[in-house]
Amino acid sequence: MSGFDIISFMTDFGWAGGYVSVCEAVMASVRPQARVFHISHEVPVGDVEAGALTLERICPSFPPAVHLALVDPGVGTHRRPLALMTARGDFLVGPDNGLLLPAAQALGGLRAAWCLDIPRVRGQARMAVDRVSSTFHGRDLFSPAAALLAGATDPSAIASPMEVASLIQTEPAFYEVTWNETVSQVIEIDRFGNIGLALPFAQLVPPAGSFLVEVVAEDLPEWTARVVRTYADLGSGELGIYCDSWGQVALAVKSASAAQLLSIEKGMRVRLTVIAGSSGEGWVE
Amino acid sequence: MSGFDIISFMTDFGWAGGYVSVCEAVMASVRPQARVFHISHEVPVGDVEAGALTLERICPSFPPAVHLALVDPGVGTHRRPLALMTARGDFLVGPDNGLLLPAAQALGGLRAAWCLDIPRVRGQARMAVDRVSSTFHGRDLFSPAAALLAGATDPSAIASPMEVASLIQTEPAFYEVTWNETVSQVIEIDRFGNIGLALPFAQLVPPAGSFLVEVVAEDLPEWTARVVRTYADLGSGELGIYCDSWGQVALAVKSASAAQLLSIEKGMRVRLTVIAGSSGEGWVE
Amino acid sequence: MSGFDIISFMTDFGWAGGYVSVCEAVMASVRPQARVFHISHEVPVGDVEAGALTLERICPSFPPAVHLALVDPGVGTHRRPLALMTARGDFLVGPDNGLLLPAAQALGGLRAAWCLDIPRVRGQARMAVDRVSSTFHGRDLFSPAAALLAGATDPSAIASPMEVASLIQTEPAFYEVTWNETVSQVIEIDRFGNIGLALPFAQLVPPAGSFLVEVVAEDLPEWTARVVRTYADLGSGELGIYCDSWGQVALAVKSASAAQLLSIEKGMRVRLTVIAGSSGEGWVE
Repeated sequence: MSGFDIISFMTDFGWAGGYVSVCEAVMASVRPQARVFHISHEVPVGDVEAGALTLERICPSFPPAVHLALVDPGVGTHRRPLALMTARGDFLVGPDNGLLLPAAQALGGLRAAWCLDIPRVRGQARMAVDRVSSTFHGRDLFSPAAALLAGATDPSAIASPMEVASLIQTEPAFYEVTWNETVSQVIEIDRFGNIGLALPFAQLVPPAGSFLVEVVAEDLPEWTARVVRTYADLGSGELGIYCDSWGQVALAVKSASAAQLLSIEKGMRVRLTVIAGSSGEGWVE
Repeated sequence: MSGFDIISFMTDFGWAGGYVSVCEAVMASVRPQARVFHISHEVPVGDVEAGALTLERICPSFPPAVHLALVDPGVGTHRRPLALMTARGDFLVGPDNGLLLPAAQALGGLRAAWCLDIPRVRGQARMAVDRVSSTFHGRDLFSPAAALLAGATDPSAIASPMEVASLIQTEPAFYEVTWNETVSQVIEIDRFGNIGLALPFAQLVPPAGSFLVEVVAEDLPEWTARVVRTYADLGSGELGIYCDSWGQVALAVKSASAAQLLSIEKGMRVRLTVIAGSSGEGWVE
Repeated sequence: MSGFDIISFMTDFGWAGGYVSVCEAVMASVRPQARVFHISHEVPVGDVEAGALTLERICPSFPPAVHLALVDPGVGTHRRPLALMTARGDFLVGPDNGLLLPAAQALGGLRAAWCLDIPRVRGQARMAVDRVSSTFHGRDLFSPAAALLAGATDPSAIASPMEVASLIQTEPAFYEVTWNETVSQVIEIDRFGNIGLALPFAQLVPPAGSFLVEVVAEDLPEWTARVVRTYADLGSGELGIYCDSWGQVALAVKSASAAQLLSIEKGMRVRLTVIAGSSGEGWVE
């Protein structure tokens, strides 16, 4: 093993207070030649599913790397600290709460799993073995572990092998397709107010025409939306359905926030119902 | 050509969701030795003028570099994807909507322009030629193009020459100077609440004394402001006019937000009228 | 002297507008081989104490480095621009307002102090000596100074020695311990809503059992809190007292924001009173 030049880093810490930075400082101490790439530190607090989604989407665009991901509401409990090796050769480091598994899948699949051992990680990293907080394993355990793996330390020197089958998984985001409608969970509101759905665009039938848009179990107005290729195909104020850059169905309004206009939040469920006779209409090749 | 070590990067993406990071990951894959410097990813959504202003101000402080800038409400339409070469030797990469031109000027002027060609960019970057989204050219086109240019790829290998005269320009921010007053657009509210105006300080006449401050076409109270050298020259609660660090006229209140106090927002127009007999009074040499 | 590879960087600028980036650009021009690590740029505007706390906490986790810290409400006045050398060998660069001293202490103590000289800094950095703004010494003075020190420039080439005793200090955060109660200032609200107190956990007596929690001089409800080891030891909605990752007393609620629940803000004072007979109860070893 020759190690990794790149450590990608994602958390729900935010940049205030230096919590991200102190992890980066620890990594720079343990493995000075590694470069840390910040995926995001704005994962909503404790939102493991949102973190898993971002990690799964972004990791494959990096060259093989160590990916350190920390959304860890169970810190200090018996939840296991993981190092996972993927088929592509990447390592994923973080808590055993489902955060890492979709990314492992996106990196070719899980090849092996280890449970990090605090004293051995800190010993190898030449850090005081007994100075471990109960609430900040990011700094005290995961960062040195990620840096050691980047430096080609053998996982078995700092961790114990685990059964892959014992890893905790998160529930996948909900979607359901029937003959003339789909119901799917809102998995993302981006900075532009675009609404990302759990439904893959390949499963939208038909992939053209117009749909009725309703929010399930909320007292919100219904909308009509037209399938388009990009924002600019929409008229002013018109709601569009499109294939977003991750291949998912998404809703947008041109030069405005669809989420705000429709009062839609992450986690809600959206029903799309085919409007009879509309198929193909409005479809921009 | 020997390539560039530095890629500067500015967007309106925000850090949430990994949209910035995936671009950086693509650049690291195409050109591992380039270092990416983040100018800002908090450009207001779709605000091309604000992005152009930041880019124009910051780029010249970098050594010659590739500057990747993405504020691109027209993504997926026929707006052209650009690579511009400047007299100083920098490249600017981004959409043809006026975002890049003020920076080109600040870097010594525009020397040549190319229109990026998606298949050639992706071919050179060894990315799948057919997997290009309609809504995220930052990841799929501009990032690999910037990384290729940083790696000394000849622009003509990935783009077609364009007429410089055909480039789209933004309207410059408004200001007007008459014998005893100026009207100028608010071009920036910074984190401290200081109010930046489109008027260059060199055109404030006289550059001393006191002025009446009014917001044009808004029902807001009038203020009196004194020309000072720095915040600390102001009394508590006093409004000051000063030459900001970009050489522009700006308004500030000591240890408080002038924008909040005056209810002023970006885009409003501010009239400054000389108060007779005040000239020189309060001017701190 | 062989210089430093690392410059850590903390400000209250925020990322919008490129103010952070232009400093980084200047440093890259003066010392291309230095790597800049961002500690945080979200220090509350002008909050020297908050900046000092973050700096003091984070710096020691870096290898010896130049630490550039800018929370500088007195910019443009006669407040002195500093370079401090610490016992560990680090340099601290920033304004003379108390921001740097706690970090110097955390880095082994202050060994020497210099007052930066603007013309000599700019001369050594090959920057125009006369183009110095009154409001942005971060870009015009401190960044080139930090980069020069990273490049092993002798401090005496760009600064004049100062009496350490003349440096301005901030008031330490308040706390007071009596036989059955403590009063201490809230020094931090983190992104999770945890409430950090000025009281070191080692001074909480007893370090177990239950306490009455009151906010001094505010009309807010009282709470009861139990000393626990980590968030997960708490029941739903229960308030806990714990030793945070910096060794301070802190208050948390499981999977919720304690600060929001208790309406507590930074700067308030919290009284903790021992509840008789509770000692040891609820203490998780």
